[in-house]
Amino acid sequence: MKNSKIILPVVLSTVLVACNDESKPVAVTKPIPTPTPVPTQPTKPNPPTPLPTDNGELLDPSSRGDISVNGGATRLKKERSEALKASISNRNVKHVILFIGDGTSESEITAARNYAEGAAGYFKGLDVFPFTGAYSTYSLIKGTKSIDYVTDSAASATAWATGTKSYNGAISVDRDAKPQQTILELAKSAGFATGNVTTTELQDATPAALAAHVTSRKCYAPTQTSKSCPKNALEKGGAGSITEQLLQTKADVTFGGGGASFKDVAKAGTYSGKTLFDQAIAMNYQVVTDVKSMNTLTEANQNKPVLGLFADGNLPVMWSGPKAQVDGNKGAASLCTANPSRSSNTPTLKEMTAKAIDLLKTHQKGFFLQVESGSIDKRNHAADACGQIGETVALDEAIQEALAFAKQNPDTLIIVTGDHAHTSQIIPNDADSPGKTVKLLTKDQVEMTINYATSKDGSQEHTGAQVRTAAYGPHAANISGLLDQTDLFFIIKKAFGL
Amino acid sequence: MKNSKIILPVVLSTVLVACNDESKPVAVTKPIPTPTPVPTQPTKPNPPTPLPTDNGELLDPSSRGDISVNGGATRLKKERSEALKASISNRNVKHVILFIGDGTSESEITAARNYAEGAAGYFKGLDVFPFTGAYSTYSLIKGTKSIDYVTDSAASATAWATGTKSYNGAISVDRDAKPQQTILELAKSAGFATGNVTTTELQDATPAALAAHVTSRKCYAPTQTSKSCPKNALEKGGAGSITEQLLQTKADVTFGGGGASFKDVAKAGTYSGKTLFDQAIAMNYQVVTDVKSMNTLTEANQNKPVLGLFADGNLPVMWSGPKAQVDGNKGAASLCTANPSRSSNTPTLKEMTAKAIDLLKTHQKGFFLQVESGSIDKRNHAADACGQIGETVALDEAIQEALAFAKQNPDTLIIVTGDHAHTSQIIPNDADSPGKTVKLLTKDQVEMTINYATSKDGSQEHTGAQVRTAAYGPHAANISGLLDQTDLFFIIKKAFGL
Repeated sequence: MKNSKIILPVVLSTVLVACNDESKPVAVTKPIPTPTPVPTQPTKPNPPTPLPTDNGELLDPSSRGDISVNGGATRLKKERSEALKASISNRNVKHVILFIGDGTSESEITAARNYAEGAAGYFKGLDVFPFTGAYSTYSLIKGTKSIDYVTDSAASATAWATGTKSYNGAISVDRDAKPQQTILELAKSAGFATGNVTTTELQDATPAALAAHVTSRKCYAPTQTSKSCPKNALEKGGAGSITEQLLQTKADVTFGGGGASFKDVAKAGTYSGKTLFDQAIAMNYQVVTDVKSMNTLTEANQNKPVLGLFADGNLPVMWSGPKAQVDGNKGAASLCTANPSRSSNTPTLKEMTAKAIDLLKTHQKGFFLQVESGSIDKRNHAADACGQIGETVALDEAIQEALAFAKQNPDTLIIVTGDHAHTSQIIPNDADSPGKTVKLLTKDQVEMTINYATSKDGSQEHTGAQVRTAAYGPHAANISGLLDQTDLFFIIKKAFGL
Repeated sequence: MKNSKIILPVVLSTVLVACNDESKPVAVTKPIPTPTPVPTQPTKPNPPTPLPTDNGELLDPSSRGDISVNGGATRLKKERSEALKASISNRNVKHVILFIGDGTSESEITAARNYAEGAAGYFKGLDVFPFTGAYSTYSLIKGTKSIDYVTDSAASATAWATGTKSYNGAISVDRDAKPQQTILELAKSAGFATGNVTTTELQDATPAALAAHVTSRKCYAPTQTSKSCPKNALEKGGAGSITEQLLQTKADVTFGGGGASFKDVAKAGTYSGKTLFDQAIAMNYQVVTDVKSMNTLTEANQNKPVLGLFADGNLPVMWSGPKAQVDGNKGAASLCTANPSRSSNTPTLKEMTAKAIDLLKTHQKGFFLQVESGSIDKRNHAADACGQIGETVALDEAIQEALAFAKQNPDTLIIVTGDHAHTSQIIPNDADSPGKTVKLLTKDQVEMTINYATSKDGSQEHTGAQVRTAAYGPHAANISGLLDQTDLFFIIKKAFGL
């Protein structure tokens, strides 16, 4: 399929439905070689009779019928007060799966839905959550209590990962650079298995904040840490670079990109002089680098932790398309295509999520898993609508995997949110925007213009609007209304009974 | 206070708290002469013992404490599954109050909160709703089933007012120009009292769509209707202009602007040759034109309907400030000031809402009331951040009035939403936007930059993102998750038991 232009909106209606069905191939990647099946629960007994399914009814927000007639466009199928009431539970959960769409809120979700499902359609993952709300995302100015209205991904990840507000650039340290315990560390210390999955470099802010504490998000590896985070450097008695701390924190499952940083060399400590890759091997990590090797994994635990390094940098995105440009909406509409530089050897977010759940679910106590679709943000920065939309669709497909697990395991809380709002806006096709625009032909077979207009020539900017939250499962009711980003830490902690 | 520059962010913390307290004056308008109190329920018996307060706990989303320490920025005060569960009800309501912030969603609410309450603060109206969600707002291309991703206020108001999707410009007619029954007409025919309150012209899309059916939103008065909506013109056997239909539909209470259209003359029918103002008088409308006369009203019903005409056009907005301009954020930050061209003779949205509720609540059967803060949209179009924020604060204050009523009358459903998303975005203060920007000094005593970048020189554009919904009271649980705009009609209908 490399370089072949496929008519995605038309094909996608079939493809995206097909993606729900494990027996059918995923259309935008090559067929994946199926390894010899390995039982995922070889030694554990089957769980007892499932708990009552009180996770809350998932929504079916499909349009009722002909959208041009009275009631035809409605999404609510029935009065649902009693159903929702019956579904609410505050009992402890075994599993929490937190999905982060980096830079993903109402505008990004709507644009992706319009393109891939049609305006009257819906995402079978993103759009079916019974409880939804919004949270504030402001950060602090370093060393002060002063407000920064536009957070970066580091301060925002620190906020939900630790419950503490911090400054832009902080990785799970507070405004005074003091390390804060993360929800992954807390869950791990309480005996839960843990996982950390992303489509970006593992050292990028969102995954890093779960497992590392450094004063600057730049400090991926030892060399940069000595320069930018000297107090964190191993040779200065610190806990080391983000990558070194990721290894030490040792989630049971860690999947993402960022392999390049593992080529750097430790400057002190037990592994002084070794590459971080060699350190991982010495620490007994099972390192996998493609779909095939990922699928051979049969266990992930503290003796045999799993490290998936699927790219040197960020994983290549799913879709390509025209970049937005000044007056871009005044030309013809375009279609998104499969990213030709993406190989089916690289796992999709859905595949990584499915594998992570399979590996973690054998742990008796339960697990905490964070899954990030990180390049929704990066393609928004780059004014690349197709890139952004494709990664949002990838997020949706990963969420569908988790929902399928939660339906079978009602002691599961799933939370879906973004870390901050972003630039992209859907504007009228005849708008005369001062920014960069692109016009796409959607599944509805009509044109949709996306506007990127927070930066003239540089990277498009984050924005400060409160961000959508959504949840399913016990404790999900806490997610509606207005929260702050820091509330997530405490909601998850409480859900675990910690 | 005219022309005086007041430091609103500093003063507002006091003012807005004070606004909750009826005994204190409203700071940004002159003290209002208090008319001789008139009992509002002179002949009706007091209601029996109130129903159980099962409207759902209102949230207290204030930050817990010092936002720079662990947990200090959280808004959730306790695990609320059981409280929310206990509060959910699907019993019929007597009263529905629907608040529309025109062009108001996450970005507008966050910007207003940051300015007036601080980022860690909250609005005592807008932000306290226990159930929140989002709805899709797409409209149709006239005469087709084809999608328009960016609605105007006419198609969107038609959607929730009638449950039918239509084209931009449509006032409660479907894509083929066929009139659709509105929720106000339905409630009225079922014996409920009705009210329609706005800060814009009464003929503007949002209030018009409740009570009129015309093929173009422009058709305010007979002269324009003959030109732009000939099939609707009285002299062609139609139902007349928006203004004539508003009079005929005869809500018990109609408050807003748009007096100018009442000077036009009917071209046919019973009132042929008379101004629409004279027609109103002939129809026994009690016409009031300022706060003082509004406050003398003691009843509103089908024999003595109430028509408040508080401006020839839109009501003047509450606040003024610098317009956004290219590189506006590169200069000094500004404060918003009271709009010098606003007189305290003009009622605030809060005052109109309070009076409308007072007049409607005496009706035994109950009432339907729509309240719109319409100039949030208009000032967003004009890249006027202070105007936009001031009208958002006005919406919040009006909502607080309704919440106070609902707490005393648990058989009340309140819904708060916007009709479409809009241009304004909070961006970093050092951003190099291609659009128009303005930098404000907020209550937090820090700078906040607002970006307007969907139109180079013309009116800023609506945007297509799904829009926040929020609700309180019986049936409120239906508002969470993903809805379409048309769902509102059916949720309200069902809540009334119709």
